[in-house]
Amino acid sequence: MAKVLILTGDAAESLEVMYPYQRLLEEGYEVHIAAPSKRKLQFVVHDFVDGFDTYTEKLGYTWPADLAFADVNPDDYVALIIPGGRAPEYIRNDADVQRIVRHFFELDKPVADLCHGPLVLAAAGVLEGRTTAAYPALEPDVRAAGATFRDSEAVIDGVVVSGRAWPDHPAWMREFMRVLRDKAPVS
Amino acid sequence: MAKVLILTGDAAESLEVMYPYQRLLEEGYEVHIAAPSKRKLQFVVHDFVDGFDTYTEKLGYTWPADLAFADVNPDDYVALIIPGGRAPEYIRNDADVQRIVRHFFELDKPVADLCHGPLVLAAAGVLEGRTTAAYPALEPDVRAAGATFRDSEAVIDGVVVSGRAWPDHPAWMREFMRVLRDKAPVS
Amino acid sequence: MAKVLILTGDAAESLEVMYPYQRLLEEGYEVHIAAPSKRKLQFVVHDFVDGFDTYTEKLGYTWPADLAFADVNPDDYVALIIPGGRAPEYIRNDADVQRIVRHFFELDKPVADLCHGPLVLAAAGVLEGRTTAAYPALEPDVRAAGATFRDSEAVIDGVVVSGRAWPDHPAWMREFMRVLRDKAPVS
Amino acid sequence: MAKVLILTGDAAESLEVMYPYQRLLEEGYEVHIAAPSKRKLQFVVHDFVDGFDTYTEKLGYTWPADLAFADVNPDDYVALIIPGGRAPEYIRNDADVQRIVRHFFELDKPVADLCHGPLVLAAAGVLEGRTTAAYPALEPDVRAAGATFRDSEAVIDGVVVSGRAWPDHPAWMREFMRVLRDKAPVS
Amino acid sequence: MAKVLILTGDAAESLEVMYPYQRLLEEGYEVHIAAPSKRKLQFVVHDFVDGFDTYTEKLGYTWPADLAFADVNPDDYVALIIPGGRAPEYIRNDADVQRIVRHFFELDKPVADLCHGPLVLAAAGVLEGRTTAAYPALEPDVRAAGATFRDSEAVIDGVVVSGRAWPDHPAWMREFMRVLRDKAPVS
Amino acid sequence: MAKVLILTGDAAESLEVMYPYQRLLEEGYEVHIAAPSKRKLQFVVHDFVDGFDTYTEKLGYTWPADLAFADVNPDDYVALIIPGGRAPEYIRNDADVQRIVRHFFELDKPVADLCHGPLVLAAAGVLEGRTTAAYPALEPDVRAAGATFRDSEAVIDGVVVSGRAWPDHPAWMREFMRVLRDKAPVS
Repeated sequence: MAKVLILTGDAAESLEVMYPYQRLLEEGYEVHIAAPSKRKLQFVVHDFVDGFDTYTEKLGYTWPADLAFADVNPDDYVALIIPGGRAPEYIRNDADVQRIVRHFFELDKPVADLCHGPLVLAAAGVLEGRTTAAYPALEPDVRAAGATFRDSEAVIDGVVVSGRAWPDHPAWMREFMRVLRDKAPVS
Repeated sequence: MAKVLILTGDAAESLEVMYPYQRLLEEGYEVHIAAPSKRKLQFVVHDFVDGFDTYTEKLGYTWPADLAFADVNPDDYVALIIPGGRAPEYIRNDADVQRIVRHFFELDKPVADLCHGPLVLAAAGVLEGRTTAAYPALEPDVRAAGATFRDSEAVIDGVVVSGRAWPDHPAWMREFMRVLRDKAPVS
Repeated sequence: MAKVLILTGDAAESLEVMYPYQRLLEEGYEVHIAAPSKRKLQFVVHDFVDGFDTYTEKLGYTWPADLAFADVNPDDYVALIIPGGRAPEYIRNDADVQRIVRHFFELDKPVADLCHGPLVLAAAGVLEGRTTAAYPALEPDVRAAGATFRDSEAVIDGVVVSGRAWPDHPAWMREFMRVLRDKAPVS
Repeated sequence: MAKVLILTGDAAESLEVMYPYQRLLEEGYEVHIAAPSKRKLQFVVHDFVDGFDTYTEKLGYTWPADLAFADVNPDDYVALIIPGGRAPEYIRNDADVQRIVRHFFELDKPVADLCHGPLVLAAAGVLEGRTTAAYPALEPDVRAAGATFRDSEAVIDGVVVSGRAWPDHPAWMREFMRVLRDKAPVS
Repeated sequence: MAKVLILTGDAAESLEVMYPYQRLLEEGYEVHIAAPSKRKLQFVVHDFVDGFDTYTEKLGYTWPADLAFADVNPDDYVALIIPGGRAPEYIRNDADVQRIVRHFFELDKPVADLCHGPLVLAAAGVLEGRTTAAYPALEPDVRAAGATFRDSEAVIDGVVVSGRAWPDHPAWMREFMRVLRDKAPVS
Repeated sequence: MAKVLILTGDAAESLEVMYPYQRLLEEGYEVHIAAPSKRKLQFVVHDFVDGFDTYTEKLGYTWPADLAFADVNPDDYVALIIPGGRAPEYIRNDADVQRIVRHFFELDKPVADLCHGPLVLAAAGVLEGRTTAAYPALEPDVRAAGATFRDSEAVIDGVVVSGRAWPDHPAWMREFMRVLRDKAPVS
């Protein structure tokens, strides 16, 4: 069975991990969650309330990581997913994360990223020259990485599909599934 | 475009609303969330921690209901979804909820329910004689309703697909999609 | 000194455990709290806020269980209390809980239950043919168990006294005390 | 029907308000809760966890006040109760609270106070020369008020009954009931 | 380098510990936090919201204590700080805390206290005859200790500087710095 | 009296706003907090717990903004402070924030920034070619902005003083005070 890899960690956004995780399992892929270490992760809920100028944060779901970044052999995986929340801010500095990300871009394997996920691509040096969605407040980071920001629910740039945040899941995953079925079918 | 209806309310389980909601949007359906009244709903996070004998509850995501139960014309919808959490406990007593549920069973339209969702089917009088999954602690409620409880990630009984809780989403939705594509394709 | 038994567990409603617990100690009974295992329990606070369609849940008091269900010899106790909250949903499936409950009904010993407590009586098979109060949203469960639901602050059916939720404590416990003093006085 | 008055406010300890409130209603008294203003009050949960050197605080129950301190005619009441938590710290400075408290002491009507409640008696100038329980950390406040601190679950000094905190409810209320039935029976 | 001592513990007010702690480090002092035992402390956030009649409490910052009260040799320190929150209520009963406090008063070394901090001075018997600010609701405690309460952002009584609560930090610390630079300069 | 400006908003880190705010008031400056709009702001507490791979977030202090970004005339201020937390992520995209920031750099007025604060300088285009501290996980953002990251408690680059996070307040503010007293004394 084809395997898909998710790169995340504590403080990742709950829905942004769980939706693609469960969606790809539903599709028939085997899905592995990699994190700084192999243990139970604590995700958060990012949402909006009236009268607060950015997203709120509450504690969300917990879920076990399947393996540590250091133990990831990217050859084992046909595609890569990088959810958002506050995990991308720190996992992007992990040398293994950068090694893994570069593998997928070098081999032109499908990649889906969302919200703060593009920060990881930027840190790995693979965002330059590309077009991407992202959490809109990150537009300066996208530009600083030499990429073009598009404020859209699903941006397709080759085999890379990006979105702005969890409300974009439907369009974002619909497009990623098209890429995935074409490039890396379940079997 | 074919429309799907979700019956839920405050205290519904966040993932159990959002996964099927976003999944069916991804598939191309129009999805409407009905609740006791048309306003922003507050969902909860049900999860497990070591050393606590049942699920924990934290505040989760908020999301607007599209219409009130009283305003639902079930003829408009090709399928019905009833997520779990604590919403089923009280929405099952709403006469409009019972009216809506019976419509789908009388016309043999696809129905997906999960976790505490079967409580709504029981209250509407449509669970008798059927086989269903449910949150396992609800086995006595399933039996009291004259139905057979099966401890499985996806139970298919005609056009009704049930599961135990949000970790079953992948299998549960995979089976429901099969039923839905067969009985009520997007277009 | 006469002993009274409380069957409860994690996620029980704080006041619904503590009020009868402290009230019977005040009266002079020895009171034992039984739970799935003998350890500190975490109760919850169920309350209501404007604009939320069911009760809210917050973390409440902690209190040690005196013994595990498996270690309960019901002969030791003159009366039984089953508080509400979310504990009844899962403790009702414990074979020892069912054994204990049946003992009290078979010997016609006083029983007080409140809110979600009647779910335990139903699962033990002793609610059929009786009249009971309960948390009003549970009316379908009462009926499914073959019992009659009464929306009242204190329902007396033989030596069984039931109420709807913690605001009913005064009337519920007043009636239970009358039964208790008559059938099982402190000494 | 004889009436009992409770003096409390926001941040009062949940159980310390609700146990005597419901207990006296159970006994047949009419009970009025007075607070700085007539509105819904927010109580708190004070509890203990390992590794924290004092009580923890969480949000607890809400309950409406029946009347404002300013509107209390103490002649209407046969007894007074002052629960603990953080309410006594500030309500003691209310001139009406002091007026009310002095009335009960001048007329030798039964008074029950618990935990931080004795702070209110001290501020009203009625604790001097008496013996009282209190939350043990308040021993210096008891002494500063010219009173004697006793580390006991129920201290009876004339018609005044005091305790240390909510775990003392059974003994505290048992003694207070004896005083009350003697001095101010329900009817 | 001159050393300053802070006496505090779990449930101290976050800002009231951290502002003077960091401020004195900024100034060049070595600062030691003493607590009931040498471990990580959990502070709280006391703040105000509309419609709640006293301060609210939330969990705040954590920070390690440097030493236990029992291990404090007050000769090592040129000045003493006692922040507020709920720590003063219980640390004032510690014999070592009282020993330490008396040392600073006997030797006329600079002392800064704020909010509930004066409770510690009162319990150590050093507040009598002095003039002090404090959290305003504590006025009766100040008077009971034989001291004069002044409702001011910074009260200077000899080498003792007191304030009402964390909003007074600027004035309170400005005055304390004047005293400190005069009596106990950094080097 | 010389005025200092703070640029921040909801979700700013509590201590990182309050320490410099109160510190500069203590020093004698008039300090204005500017935010997206003039209303009460809700800050957060960022802290660390064992077993969580990044900072945790809890609700912290509230404090009123003095004016909206749009109403800031930077000529009125002698210095600028940009605290961290999650506010810099979104306020950096405000055109008025960028206008204000550029004013201080163009006129070589003192600037202090900390933690996520450098993101605002980067977005305003003034970080290029400079050396700065920042929350260490932001090193890629600093480099992407054309600046040099230094992992130090206080980095002084001309009249700009930066730090990593609130534990650096003592060194960071000590250095900033030196700059400020030199370039923009209180009077």
